[in-house]
Amino acid sequence: MSELELDLLPTVSNDPATATNRCLITEVSITPVAFADPPLLNSVGVHEPFALRAIVVVRTEDGLYGLGETYGDEAHLVRLNRAGALLVGADAFNLNQVSSLVAASLADDAGVGGHGTGGMVTTTSLEDRVLSAFDVACLDIQGKALGVPVSTLLGGAVRDEVAFSGYLFYKWAGHPGHADDSWGAALDPAGIVAQARKIVDEYGFTALKLKGGVFEPEIEAATIEALREAFPDMPLRIDPNGVWTVDTAIKVGQRLEPVLEYLEDPCLSIEDNAAVRAAVKLPIATNMCVVSFNDVPPAIAAGAVDVVLSDHHFWGGLRRSQTLAGIAETFKLGLSMHSNSHLGISFAAMIQLAAATKNIDYACDTHWPWKLASDDVIVPSALEIRGGSVKVPTAPGLGIELDEEALARMHQQYLDCGLTKRDDTGYMQSIHPEFRLATPRW
Amino acid sequence: MSELELDLLPTVSNDPATATNRCLITEVSITPVAFADPPLLNSVGVHEPFALRAIVVVRTEDGLYGLGETYGDEAHLVRLNRAGALLVGADAFNLNQVSSLVAASLADDAGVGGHGTGGMVTTTSLEDRVLSAFDVACLDIQGKALGVPVSTLLGGAVRDEVAFSGYLFYKWAGHPGHADDSWGAALDPAGIVAQARKIVDEYGFTALKLKGGVFEPEIEAATIEALREAFPDMPLRIDPNGVWTVDTAIKVGQRLEPVLEYLEDPCLSIEDNAAVRAAVKLPIATNMCVVSFNDVPPAIAAGAVDVVLSDHHFWGGLRRSQTLAGIAETFKLGLSMHSNSHLGISFAAMIQLAAATKNIDYACDTHWPWKLASDDVIVPSALEIRGGSVKVPTAPGLGIELDEEALARMHQQYLDCGLTKRDDTGYMQSIHPEFRLATPRW
Ligand SMILES: [Mg+2]
Ligand SMILES: [Mg+2]
Repeated sequence: MSELELDLLPTVSNDPATATNRCLITEVSITPVAFADPPLLNSVGVHEPFALRAIVVVRTEDGLYGLGETYGDEAHLVRLNRAGALLVGADAFNLNQVSSLVAASLADDAGVGGHGTGGMVTTTSLEDRVLSAFDVACLDIQGKALGVPVSTLLGGAVRDEVAFSGYLFYKWAGHPGHADDSWGAALDPAGIVAQARKIVDEYGFTALKLKGGVFEPEIEAATIEALREAFPDMPLRIDPNGVWTVDTAIKVGQRLEPVLEYLEDPCLSIEDNAAVRAAVKLPIATNMCVVSFNDVPPAIAAGAVDVVLSDHHFWGGLRRSQTLAGIAETFKLGLSMHSNSHLGISFAAMIQLAAATKNIDYACDTHWPWKLASDDVIVPSALEIRGGSVKVPTAPGLGIELDEEALARMHQQYLDCGLTKRDDTGYMQSIHPEFRLATPRW
Repeated sequence: MSELELDLLPTVSNDPATATNRCLITEVSITPVAFADPPLLNSVGVHEPFALRAIVVVRTEDGLYGLGETYGDEAHLVRLNRAGALLVGADAFNLNQVSSLVAASLADDAGVGGHGTGGMVTTTSLEDRVLSAFDVACLDIQGKALGVPVSTLLGGAVRDEVAFSGYLFYKWAGHPGHADDSWGAALDPAGIVAQARKIVDEYGFTALKLKGGVFEPEIEAATIEALREAFPDMPLRIDPNGVWTVDTAIKVGQRLEPVLEYLEDPCLSIEDNAAVRAAVKLPIATNMCVVSFNDVPPAIAAGAVDVVLSDHHFWGGLRRSQTLAGIAETFKLGLSMHSNSHLGISFAAMIQLAAATKNIDYACDTHWPWKLASDDVIVPSALEIRGGSVKVPTAPGLGIELDEEALARMHQQYLDCGLTKRDDTGYMQSIHPEFRLATPRW
């Protein structure tokens, strides 16, 4: 460790006579894994056949381990490994120290790449993005050491189950050159309604979200209206990922006013969403224009958003996501949760956080139904969606267990698939060479 | 418990097979105490011969106890007792449940009185004011149950000692009709400089704060200038508790620009302080116009303050004070800590909180030197100011122990002194009948 890095270390007592429950980190391993992902369409292209994640395992001198999960892009893996090396010798009980060490590991990082979102959101905080999985892993360790679930470390569960929304996607029947997947195609209103029936039947969701930004706004508005007809009482949302112009957003927004629970990221910028908000009587939700603490003051000043969709993967972990929840409460903003394709560790972290957060105002997003049940790194059945909700694990820590064999298998899948970063656009162009990014597109 | 109150209870699993580390509260006792206080002058009058506090002791079925300390005003005691009764049977590990129960206990409370500040600040949040001591006591219990200091429960210590400022007061030599106290009179610049020398000699403070709002602004400005001359390198602050007009505040502020570290509550309202801020090149600090989460949005919108002086006694305890710290960081506001006359439990809580809060940007305020060492309810010497700082206790919980005999003695002192609420103005008028409240006064 350089002298500069040592200077950045917080001054914490090392007096063995008084220091209690230090849980020294002896090993940090970062393992990239891949899991099968259907061809889900979005504004920047289409999900590749495999989604990538990094599995963080932090081990302590007492033989405990803690789990974290984050993006699997190559540039992110490099950063995770650098940060992880610096954390050896740190105290898993001192999250502030962990955060300072992560910051130190990034001191000379130019911040290029590794966003993990296929280029869709590139303005998240580098430090918070790298910190997140370590924060989660350390909380998992703390919970195990103390015999309490992570929800307790976050202030105590206020609910014993967490509600999620059914996440609908326009999609192809299967990846080109492969057999159809179990979901089949959904390329028009009727296809999405059929998908919704299946996902509601299987999981019992009590709210539905449509990933938009794929087809002409006219088609997507008609899709929402078809969902309303098929599910008269279901809260509905649409998320075109910011590819509409202000005019289009106002037109579609006004049309869907009687139907939507909220309108998610109609446009990309704070300014444009504020203009939409002024003209449309719907709450505006975002996980694209408010993605770091730096975005909060200008978004509030502009009155751009009503609902922040938090995401512990880029808001710096669970404790910092709670700070965001406190900000939302203070400024009377709604709060819910955003999701990228994820495995069980991320799901458990989201659930523990939501359990301990009073102001989760809407069913949270999850991609959970889109992965194969067999594709995970944790021992199965700790987390199951029933009636649209997941029971909050009350076992110590995150309440899940690592399956070492599954981790090895999923890592081999990563090596075999040959992908090194998420690239929805490149994959789409390999199939439709004429596809071009455009923001706004309509 | 009424049905209404039951409805307000969070839904938490009671499954004994999975729930871990529940720490059921079996008893809550609220004991008013009084401790000797010198005749410290301020804008609303003068400190009475005794300051009042309520000592909260929360006991659990495992035989643990947790300590909290808060205002001792009669109306506040009534509320503490009502909330305390509702907490019996709750889980000291579930701070969110504790907070919901405190809110339920206040459901039909008209909010009159019990502010504990002698009428100086009356706009704090009723719920947060009542919650605070229970939040602290439960964290003390959690720390003891888990074997970690409260700083660990708050994210981990980032410093092993916390710096405080020397708090200077204009004062009489002693209470009328009593012998002079050990500090003697301080009624002009020379008197304050002498007081400063004594307090710096005894405690080693490296920052000084003058309680103003007592004399003509001309005299108080001259006092600050005399302090600057006597202590060329010492950060200095003045706090007239909002009794200056905007014009006076601008005039005095501009005069003291080269001398002050920050100017504290020159005026009372957000609006007036914003006007001062626009004209004076000094940070404006406050513990009077931003005293609850509701004040944060308008104060930020107005650009009224640069530094929030947090106070866990009215910001809802330690976790909510951390939310405030996160808001301060997000909106690039400075942060430090306000103090009222207090005993060792409050001091320990302030120190644990400051230890775990990265963005404590200034030495914190404390009234600690103004009380007799013999007047406390905790076993002595856990907390000592040396070199202007206090070493953060690393023993489990708050790191202090209740002295039951001392508590009984201090309670007897409460009964004997006959005071039932803080009333600096009434006491001043009993000595100087012509004294009148006036805001602004100059
Ligand atoms: Mg979104
Ligand atoms: Mg003040």
